[in-house]
Amino acid sequence: MKLKAVLINCSLKKESSDSSTNILISQIQHSLSSHGVESESVYSRNYNILPGVNHDEGENDEWSNIKEKIDDCDLLVIGTPIWLGQPSSIAKRVLERMNAYIDDTDEHGRMKTYGKVACVCVVGNEDGAHHVSAELYQALNDVGFTLPANAISYWVGEAMQGKDYKDHRNGYPEKTTNATSLMVRNAVHLAKLLREKNYQGEKG
Amino acid sequence: MKLKAVLINCSLKKESSDSSTNILISQIQHSLSSHGVESESVYSRNYNILPGVNHDEGENDEWSNIKEKIDDCDLLVIGTPIWLGQPSSIAKRVLERMNAYIDDTDEHGRMKTYGKVACVCVVGNEDGAHHVSAELYQALNDVGFTLPANAISYWVGEAMQGKDYKDHRNGYPEKTTNATSLMVRNAVHLAKLLREKNYQGEKG
Amino acid sequence: MKLKAVLINCSLKKESSDSSTNILISQIQHSLSSHGVESESVYSRNYNILPGVNHDEGENDEWSNIKEKIDDCDLLVIGTPIWLGQPSSIAKRVLERMNAYIDDTDEHGRMKTYGKVACVCVVGNEDGAHHVSAELYQALNDVGFTLPANAISYWVGEAMQGKDYKDHRNGYPEKTTNATSLMVRNAVHLAKLLREKNYQGEKG
Amino acid sequence: MKLKAVLINCSLKKESSDSSTNILISQIQHSLSSHGVESESVYSRNYNILPGVNHDEGENDEWSNIKEKIDDCDLLVIGTPIWLGQPSSIAKRVLERMNAYIDDTDEHGRMKTYGKVACVCVVGNEDGAHHVSAELYQALNDVGFTLPANAISYWVGEAMQGKDYKDHRNGYPEKTTNATSLMVRNAVHLAKLLREKNYQGEKG
Repeated sequence: MKLKAVLINCSLKKESSDSSTNILISQIQHSLSSHGVESESVYSRNYNILPGVNHDEGENDEWSNIKEKIDDCDLLVIGTPIWLGQPSSIAKRVLERMNAYIDDTDEHGRMKTYGKVACVCVVGNEDGAHHVSAELYQALNDVGFTLPANAISYWVGEAMQGKDYKDHRNGYPEKTTNATSLMVRNAVHLAKLLREKNYQGEKG
Repeated sequence: MKLKAVLINCSLKKESSDSSTNILISQIQHSLSSHGVESESVYSRNYNILPGVNHDEGENDEWSNIKEKIDDCDLLVIGTPIWLGQPSSIAKRVLERMNAYIDDTDEHGRMKTYGKVACVCVVGNEDGAHHVSAELYQALNDVGFTLPANAISYWVGEAMQGKDYKDHRNGYPEKTTNATSLMVRNAVHLAKLLREKNYQGEKG
Repeated sequence: MKLKAVLINCSLKKESSDSSTNILISQIQHSLSSHGVESESVYSRNYNILPGVNHDEGENDEWSNIKEKIDDCDLLVIGTPIWLGQPSSIAKRVLERMNAYIDDTDEHGRMKTYGKVACVCVVGNEDGAHHVSAELYQALNDVGFTLPANAISYWVGEAMQGKDYKDHRNGYPEKTTNATSLMVRNAVHLAKLLREKNYQGEKG
Repeated sequence: MKLKAVLINCSLKKESSDSSTNILISQIQHSLSSHGVESESVYSRNYNILPGVNHDEGENDEWSNIKEKIDDCDLLVIGTPIWLGQPSSIAKRVLERMNAYIDDTDEHGRMKTYGKVACVCVVGNEDGAHHVSAELYQALNDVGFTLPANAISYWVGEAMQGKDYKDHRNGYPEKTTNATSLMVRNAVHLAKLLREKNYQGEKG
């Protein structure tokens, strides 16, 4: 059975077409496809994700649409822009909602995220990708995801300049392209190992 | 003229009555009052703050209700709970919207936040207050606020325990009470100095 | 062949006997042993680790003593106290020296750390474990380590109190004991999978 | 009496002549001078700063050479390179040693750092200045420093490129030059206000 990946775009923008994050996500999907992985991207801003730390936050909460895809995947990619050097508030909302996995364990005492691999992709016109990945790695690891070696692809420009990733339509930076290949290769390798043999629970 | 403070509660909870953050905010307001400062608290979750980095994000955006209070204050306090060791997604949303101050400068080239003092208050059942303050200090400073010495009051419990700040109704921790007094004293002092003599702009 | 673990204590203290970090490290070693893993702990402050980002920083540099153990292990644990809510300067020094792995790749283009699993353990009298883990996860992942689900064991006390982990000699907190078991079980599982089948390099 | 500034270079490099951080520090000193501020820079790596959190860590500890300058200044600038997206281990060591100010209070119960203003300057070949400033702001604020609006000057290059700040000898980036002017103007303004009227202590 094919591995499945879900990529969650946490851009603040209304239109996904105008999102640098979306471009990098598409490139990652292309790379995943070359490894035989089925993937799907989700544009978070199109969903009404209510504040909270439960799987269901009641009326009008549309988180379950995204949660189902996470539950069903082998490999999760969180894609976020950088604002003020930090992950977007939408990325934070998505992570907060995944907090509910901590107490949602199976018959072996394992979170339902155990065995799933997570990566991040980050774009900004300047400065912040490493810190964004630190915040995301810690939150994703706390809620049960496994992080492959070099679990990030990113691009940022020179300090205080205005160039965006989407402004490279004549040729995307080779360093980022290479980071994408490396991240995907490692993530797919690890997801396969864990699908074959998931973590054991405390109950043996 | 009296100094004015606004305190923004960034709790994820629907009801402010159930918010530990609200209790600490009330205590800070009490302390501000003893220094002759007028204050007002805002419960962010009651407003529809749209994602974005502009002062106005269009239809249904209720950010301007909060922004007006910030524009009008001498002293801003951001109050946030800790989730996954990090500031709440609502705190992040509030900070993102303040990004718009960066390009909103007066005739002297100064952001409209210049001369305003900012503090933070943080509660969690465990672990994260220092990091939350680091994230908030940097974002608030980037958008033009000045930070007084010891600009934080906080409470967190022992690792992986479930006790909340609101569970101390028989007596709130003295260390936090002292931190509140210190923070307020310093903030009020600095706000007075800056009201008397604001930063000069690049245009003299 | 048995798995090997190395645990690096990044305490600032001169004497390891007085280190809360050392107590938690010993507990982790005990747990590793129950899984049949050989382990060794290193007290960093006993070595003259020169500033720099190369494997060898010249005269008097004693980093190679630690590096050899890392090169030889399947599983690395970085143990650090919290100061000012952040990892110790010694932990930072250790991570900086591991920066040299980034350009030290094998014939398949893989860092020599590929296939090794990393975890962290953190103690402080209060507040900071999640952030410390975020900083460490990101740095360790950047230099090629894989992070198992829930890759942390930690203890911190209530805000602004003075109690240390070492002050629990009549009974260490059960939550931390459980976190240690979980972390070790996951780390050992993942280290076995990766030893059987390491990441493939870009050269196939 | 003239204001005094001390700028602490936390580069990992042996020779100050080869430090990008040193170039930015010199530019800040030039700007301070134009405001009539006397300044002195310190190259930390030239001192044997022992690990610890006390003012004096005993035999061979050379921290007091730096501490005296901090005690004597109105304005402190911490300058650090970025490694793995984070402050240097030497910057961390300097901050840790300043932890001792927390319990070193005057007859009014104020830390001896009260009334002093702090700023940061950060250089890296890529990515990390905002996060470095967050870590430094929080630590500096915890130990009693006041942070002026926009308390940072920095430069970083495009993602994963190798260009350094020192490679701009034909013309340093205007954005960084402007950030330096702004930071210095604000810091000097605030240091003057606080020298005229320092925070009051809890004892009135």
